[in-house]
Amino acid sequence: MLTKEIKQQLTAIVGPENFADSKASQLVYSFDATPQFQAMPDAIVSPRNKVEVAEVVKCCSQHRIPLVPRGSGTNLSAGTTPQQGGIVLLFKHLDQIVEIDEENLTITTQPGVNTLELIEAVEAKGLFYPPDPSSMKISQIGGNINENSGGLRGLKYGVTRDYVMGLEIVLPNGEIIRTGGKLAKDVAGYDLTRLFVGSEGTLGIITEATLKLIPMPETKKTVLALYEDIDAAARTVSKIIASRIIPTTLEFLDQPTIKVVEEFSNIGLPTHVKAMLLIEQDGSTQTVEKDIEDISEICRENEAIEISVAKTEADAEALRTARRSALSALARLKPTTILEDATVPRSEIAKMVKAINQIARKYDVEICTFGHAGDGNLHPTCLTDARNKPEMERVEQAFEEIFQTAVDLGGTITGEHGVGAMKAPYLHLKLGEAGISAMQGVKQAFDPYNIMNPGKMFAKSSRKRVVVSP
Amino acid sequence: MLTKEIKQQLTAIVGPENFADSKASQLVYSFDATPQFQAMPDAIVSPRNKVEVAEVVKCCSQHRIPLVPRGSGTNLSAGTTPQQGGIVLLFKHLDQIVEIDEENLTITTQPGVNTLELIEAVEAKGLFYPPDPSSMKISQIGGNINENSGGLRGLKYGVTRDYVMGLEIVLPNGEIIRTGGKLAKDVAGYDLTRLFVGSEGTLGIITEATLKLIPMPETKKTVLALYEDIDAAARTVSKIIASRIIPTTLEFLDQPTIKVVEEFSNIGLPTHVKAMLLIEQDGSTQTVEKDIEDISEICRENEAIEISVAKTEADAEALRTARRSALSALARLKPTTILEDATVPRSEIAKMVKAINQIARKYDVEICTFGHAGDGNLHPTCLTDARNKPEMERVEQAFEEIFQTAVDLGGTITGEHGVGAMKAPYLHLKLGEAGISAMQGVKQAFDPYNIMNPGKMFAKSSRKRVVVSP
Repeated sequence: MLTKEIKQQLTAIVGPENFADSKASQLVYSFDATPQFQAMPDAIVSPRNKVEVAEVVKCCSQHRIPLVPRGSGTNLSAGTTPQQGGIVLLFKHLDQIVEIDEENLTITTQPGVNTLELIEAVEAKGLFYPPDPSSMKISQIGGNINENSGGLRGLKYGVTRDYVMGLEIVLPNGEIIRTGGKLAKDVAGYDLTRLFVGSEGTLGIITEATLKLIPMPETKKTVLALYEDIDAAARTVSKIIASRIIPTTLEFLDQPTIKVVEEFSNIGLPTHVKAMLLIEQDGSTQTVEKDIEDISEICRENEAIEISVAKTEADAEALRTARRSALSALARLKPTTILEDATVPRSEIAKMVKAINQIARKYDVEICTFGHAGDGNLHPTCLTDARNKPEMERVEQAFEEIFQTAVDLGGTITGEHGVGAMKAPYLHLKLGEAGISAMQGVKQAFDPYNIMNPGKMFAKSSRKRVVVSP
Repeated sequence: MLTKEIKQQLTAIVGPENFADSKASQLVYSFDATPQFQAMPDAIVSPRNKVEVAEVVKCCSQHRIPLVPRGSGTNLSAGTTPQQGGIVLLFKHLDQIVEIDEENLTITTQPGVNTLELIEAVEAKGLFYPPDPSSMKISQIGGNINENSGGLRGLKYGVTRDYVMGLEIVLPNGEIIRTGGKLAKDVAGYDLTRLFVGSEGTLGIITEATLKLIPMPETKKTVLALYEDIDAAARTVSKIIASRIIPTTLEFLDQPTIKVVEEFSNIGLPTHVKAMLLIEQDGSTQTVEKDIEDISEICRENEAIEISVAKTEADAEALRTARRSALSALARLKPTTILEDATVPRSEIAKMVKAINQIARKYDVEICTFGHAGDGNLHPTCLTDARNKPEMERVEQAFEEIFQTAVDLGGTITGEHGVGAMKAPYLHLKLGEAGISAMQGVKQAFDPYNIMNPGKMFAKSSRKRVVVSP
């Protein structure tokens, strides 16, 4: 609970219209896109500039109040739920694109800019910002940076981290620092830029970012390949990369996912097949033609039963949109949808998909799998009902086994969703105690009073869980 | 000075043949490639595996002995001089390529592998490891990782950091951790991988690294463009990028550099021109043809007086080798050569080159400039004589002004050489006190007893210097 004095202090900083602590507003910011996680904030503040952000941080530091920076809250790891109450800080007034620099190929932006709007602004200049998280229609770029968001184009173009060149950051002590810049090369000290990308708001608050852009690829093409055998699809993925072709996207959908996506999007996906690959290549016209030909040949050699190239960009966009809607489509089927992102080296995709299916059978739970096969980033998605306690127990056990299997195959517990509150109890599987301890040292160095998004990344207890009891 | 007991302890760990403390061996490791920096170690140890590395670290931690990991010592920032004595740790027994994984496109390597050997091993499989520091014939990959080395291909392909996917690290407390993996996407906690890349051996010792590889480009072509006007050359650089072409390399040499390089390499470079651009593009045959045509046209439009495409790969390699020899060539002219790497956004290249020339005149010192124009990473190189005290004073003043100018133009004090002991007094120009303080917090968290490469990155005094008095 905030005292009257603290409320007055915060209101004086951001203005009364940018401070809210009604029950209704608390409720709105008590959850994010993660099912089954909810915690009430004490208040919501929306600073109008970085100086106000710094003042809010100083106030929270002085009174040891938890502070949770939040974009649109589309994350799936309970990354922005205020686990220990306190203040949720919104970027809604920091919503300006500062500059698109066509000579240095950079965009400088405030954190509250919508991801898709940023992508479109850049594309209007013939430039390209590749990271494309499935939530990009709703998400904010500041949230993407905090979570190091991935997306469909990660295979060829990397993730958010690979495009962040410089940051303006308000540290937990209220100091404002700048890291990096419009510089392809900069080794002046530790790489704080990348340390902050993906730090989930636990080290400070990002108030501006300079992002790298690249020239817009000349053209792109999309292929759909259908399989009667999951193994054959996984083998195709490996063979494409091993033949030295790196497609822009290489997406995998299993049969249950195809069915619900088709039901949801109605674009004529074949629901009778066991697996589908959605493959896209971009680049110069000639390269794309050749790669798509070679890719089609590899699909054929690996027992695809049908291969079709999207005839128009509209057809291709319909396929991409359908794929991006997978979560929404799945979410309609059962009261509770738990989407995970266990990730393995791409050579282990087939093993991982098989293991997921075995684990689902073992624990008698329903798991569909789709995801970014090209970079080994799978989304096993459990359709369940949180009210069914015995089933939820089994869901937890199944996911713990999935995470352990991913790590055993040289993978990780989370490829692009982040640790948040949801995966904190599993972090040791990937890092070991010494690794966690090293990270806690970093956290302690930046945030000695643990005010920045407390309760995230590092688990208090070792109780494993993908869901909390409602 | 090491006590007899400590020497025995270290000898017991690595074996007597891998412990040295003779005057001769101390002398060999008292300097690196940085002129005018020298400091004597107490002993040199060469552990045979990571367990021995961890034992050495524990011994040094217990007795608070400085520990300096060192590859081939080719760095130019006094990054591996043992400023406070102690132990120099060599990677000579950790010199194995562990695996080239053609399915996941990775190489896993020990730190003591020679950079060029690694590149050649990878190319033999039709794969490509792009970072190509000029010292690559001598340097070790572990040193490249510690320094986040750049190179000629940085413009298109990025730097060492962009290729490090996972590390095995011995922490200052002797614990061994693993970060990342063969994973394009991994957000399990803070990005320790990138934090360690470029940390100059101040946070721990890297004992293994997994590096990303990409398919070998189909072909490459090299263009040489000559200018009677430095501005025109700089303008060409900006125009190429603004026209959405990202060449592999885009190197700039001014007249004094051309002259000495030609004298050194004798490959027929025209010494009468004011500036030269060496431009290379790689990719598919058609893309390369088109880009080289477009680049040539842009050179012509921007007043290049001569444009020639290298006819054979041998000719192109001669040009690249000549460019890489710039430092060696310049080093023959005067007793002392100080090569710097002030870096600016590429749009500011022309301003920066002009500023360097003005500053050289102002302080009456001889500075040649060459470097990676495409990424704004310039190498102003001062030819001087350390015995000439008054001139050295002026050299220091000139470089301080160059660093300040680079920062004023949105740049940095070091693009690819690192901070080391040499640039530590200038770090605040780029980071400010709050930024340095944040980095010192990280250092303290990992290395509370300050045993890892002490005296680097963070300046004890605020005395500015690019050289120390001999």
